[in-house]
Amino acid sequence: MDAKPLLQQYQQRVEQQLKTVLSLSGDAEKIRQAMQYSLFNGGKRVRPVLVYMANQLLGGKLEQADAAACAIECIHSYSLVHDDLPAMDDDELRRGKPTCHIAFDEATAILAGDGLQALAFELLAADTTLPADICLKMISILARDSGYRGMVGGQSIDLCNEGQQISAGQLELMHRYKTGALISASIELGALSSNHASDNDLQALNDYSRAIGLAFQVKDDILDIESNTETLGKPQGSDLLLEKSTYPALLGMAGAKQKLALLNEQAHTSIDYFKDAAEPLHWLADYIVERQY
Amino acid sequence: MDAKPLLQQYQQRVEQQLKTVLSLSGDAEKIRQAMQYSLFNGGKRVRPVLVYMANQLLGGKLEQADAAACAIECIHSYSLVHDDLPAMDDDELRRGKPTCHIAFDEATAILAGDGLQALAFELLAADTTLPADICLKMISILARDSGYRGMVGGQSIDLCNEGQQISAGQLELMHRYKTGALISASIELGALSSNHASDNDLQALNDYSRAIGLAFQVKDDILDIESNTETLGKPQGSDLLLEKSTYPALLGMAGAKQKLALLNEQAHTSIDYFKDAAEPLHWLADYIVERQY
Repeated sequence: MDAKPLLQQYQQRVEQQLKTVLSLSGDAEKIRQAMQYSLFNGGKRVRPVLVYMANQLLGGKLEQADAAACAIECIHSYSLVHDDLPAMDDDELRRGKPTCHIAFDEATAILAGDGLQALAFELLAADTTLPADICLKMISILARDSGYRGMVGGQSIDLCNEGQQISAGQLELMHRYKTGALISASIELGALSSNHASDNDLQALNDYSRAIGLAFQVKDDILDIESNTETLGKPQGSDLLLEKSTYPALLGMAGAKQKLALLNEQAHTSIDYFKDAAEPLHWLADYIVERQY
Repeated sequence: MDAKPLLQQYQQRVEQQLKTVLSLSGDAEKIRQAMQYSLFNGGKRVRPVLVYMANQLLGGKLEQADAAACAIECIHSYSLVHDDLPAMDDDELRRGKPTCHIAFDEATAILAGDGLQALAFELLAADTTLPADICLKMISILARDSGYRGMVGGQSIDLCNEGQQISAGQLELMHRYKTGALISASIELGALSSNHASDNDLQALNDYSRAIGLAFQVKDDILDIESNTETLGKPQGSDLLLEKSTYPALLGMAGAKQKLALLNEQAHTSIDYFKDAAEPLHWLADYIVERQY
């Protein structure tokens, strides 16, 4: 199956949706512009695509997944803005464009990230297509998975690890928090948005998201070494410069590629349970592994 | 009426509640510690007190207000951590103690703020004492009032105003966003937590919170000039150094005090509607105006 048209359909859908989430004007115009700039920075919208795919897998309606798709992207977007700050990764470019604190200023970038996080929860709370208890469950999951027991915790572990020699187990733990948690949340919110998710469904999807989440990161590490700055939109080898532990550094390039293949296999196996309905998710697992940027 | 014992009871209650909101241990220990440090920095817990008072005014149960009280304090606490950062106000002391980025480091302070914001929404979503639709409404209000159309928007306006000559109207607009929005949210969430709030109740309380919110700020501006560093816990006159517009600067000290008296009167009038039941809120309005730190 080639699910690329589906991927593009979902990408376009979330682009359209995101255009409506920020009020057109207001008293605080500069911060609105900085949030807008950060939301529309050419991202691949992988997480919203996951939301829609999980929603469709379980027979949901796409409009029930819109709030979750936008909320997850707001969280992802805020995390990039804060991650790029001088006190964090100190990146001046993201996908070839000036990062928020370069295009605006550092204080505005901090506030834009804060505003995007609040917006994520506002969007979920305002959703009228789903029962209130489902919306609450989504908020609960997103708050946990983006907070200190999720994404933010992973970023902190990452900072603590910098310049340290760590094990493959510690590296996996860090990534499970830092990027894995939000990818899992995407799948889980998408499943919940169908209003038809059973415990077995959620378990299978959870196994899938853990595998693709880590695969995504291993692939990123490989690309950071093998790709060039132009394709990547950030300086090639920048992880090495920051003395960050990576899979190629820990396992060697061959070992990292072996790990990637194993995770891809796990991803496929975990969703066999859904039979043909899971074809887009199978395709996406391969897409993550085979992408060149 | 002397509502000081009530104030202390509510302060102690939220202290106890806040002690339980962070899991005891986790993989991301450093960030948990930084969040803990920021939550317990000797704050007066004014906003949680407002939550409890509004809850009690409308005949609610205190336990129904616990989640809102803690959530609001998490938001307030995160905003202070980010406000103190070098790129923002660059403060090394808060209430006589090192600010989060001094006690830890800048990256950790950014992340601790982010984690506290997520925690606020997690707490509201996990509340089981209220119907789901009430919890959603609370989340919606808190997200809006702490986001770019509220607190974060106000901080951005404040930054844009720095070094500029602005009018009293612009100053009021900025404060209504920057501090007023979260004070209004405290009262509104407290009222909603009673599960008995009518539109008239909410309107009267909204007028009250707008008045005390601005009064709080005018008083802060006055104290920044009249108080000394030891009482204030931050360098005296620090707003002047940052070339921030203040009420005494715009209206003169006598004008600022007149404004404060007028706002206090408005606060009292707005809650006459509740008769004797509002005595603690009357007391609190006076307390805000008369405090010495």
